[in-house]
Amino acid sequence: MIQHRATSADDRAGTIMRAALDVALEAGYARLSIEAVAARAGVGKHAVYRRWTSKGLLFLDSILSLNEPALDYPDTGDVRADLRHQIHAAVDLLGAPPWGPLYRALLGEAQHDPAVAAGLVERFIRPQAEKTEARLRTAREQGQVSADFDLDLAMSILSGPLYFQFMITQEPVTHAYVDRVLDALFAGLGPRP
Amino acid sequence: MIQHRATSADDRAGTIMRAALDVALEAGYARLSIEAVAARAGVGKHAVYRRWTSKGLLFLDSILSLNEPALDYPDTGDVRADLRHQIHAAVDLLGAPPWGPLYRALLGEAQHDPAVAAGLVERFIRPQAEKTEARLRTAREQGQVSADFDLDLAMSILSGPLYFQFMITQEPVTHAYVDRVLDALFAGLGPRP
Repeated sequence: MIQHRATSADDRAGTIMRAALDVALEAGYARLSIEAVAARAGVGKHAVYRRWTSKGLLFLDSILSLNEPALDYPDTGDVRADLRHQIHAAVDLLGAPPWGPLYRALLGEAQHDPAVAAGLVERFIRPQAEKTEARLRTAREQGQVSADFDLDLAMSILSGPLYFQFMITQEPVTHAYVDRVLDALFAGLGPRP
Repeated sequence: MIQHRATSADDRAGTIMRAALDVALEAGYARLSIEAVAARAGVGKHAVYRRWTSKGLLFLDSILSLNEPALDYPDTGDVRADLRHQIHAAVDLLGAPPWGPLYRALLGEAQHDPAVAAGLVERFIRPQAEKTEARLRTAREQGQVSADFDLDLAMSILSGPLYFQFMITQEPVTHAYVDRVLDALFAGLGPRP
């Protein structure tokens, strides 16, 4: 009985999260409201508020429920090839629906709602940063990354230019662009000795 | 007579823009609406709509009207010192009211409204990118930047990590952080030859 009720609650949560994504994709994030999601899911407003205290937190859960590729780094022994592989996968996600426009809307909401920003970092950005750091640590031990490189900065240096293009210039982010960025980051801005 | 009317229209625009900034700072961007701004400015809604078609475009104009430091690069002959100087100025702006929270709200709106994103790039980001590129071109000619460095990437590589910290992790952006980033970018990730 308890089992059955738990499953039913999970089903309902899934229905609500799918409804949130549908509303955001079809009507745009500005039209997303708890009321609109409840209507779309065929449940009462209170069923939504019982689980989510704001539309931003509902939207965060909904996007993370998509279970997109975990963006893991392969380890082929060639760190630049592995970084390229992983960043190309990220670019493919960002460049197309549903993930691209949904993620952009989430990043927008994170600028207005600190709870959304904190949830995003804890559940998506920090795990990514840890994977990036781990892959670069191995590469550093193998002499493929400079012994001086500050691993704490790995995520922001590698992802920063990608997010800059996605959020600020909003020009298409292509494989060619991230390849050029990787080449420039490995070579460094300083003159060769 | 025409002169007088023009001045009066400019005065009114200034009053409206100041009201928009006040509402955003005091009530938060979510509460910013054309109605709230009109009420605060003591004008009718139509006076606002006559000049601005959306709250996002009004907010963009209002922020740019603040005439914050132009973030020009000095040219002391030492490119790393000059970059550090300019990026510290940007960090100081981002780290404190009114510019910091207002700019964050604007970047959030730019994720939802393509017209705001386009206006921001045209009027603020692209001029910054051109200054950055020009300063690095001079440095490249003087042998302070690698001859291979891809100048087109200068803005996204230098600013990306700053925006990543500001918008994504939302941890405080400090002088020490950008100094570490600059050091890492000049050294490059690749092993020393």
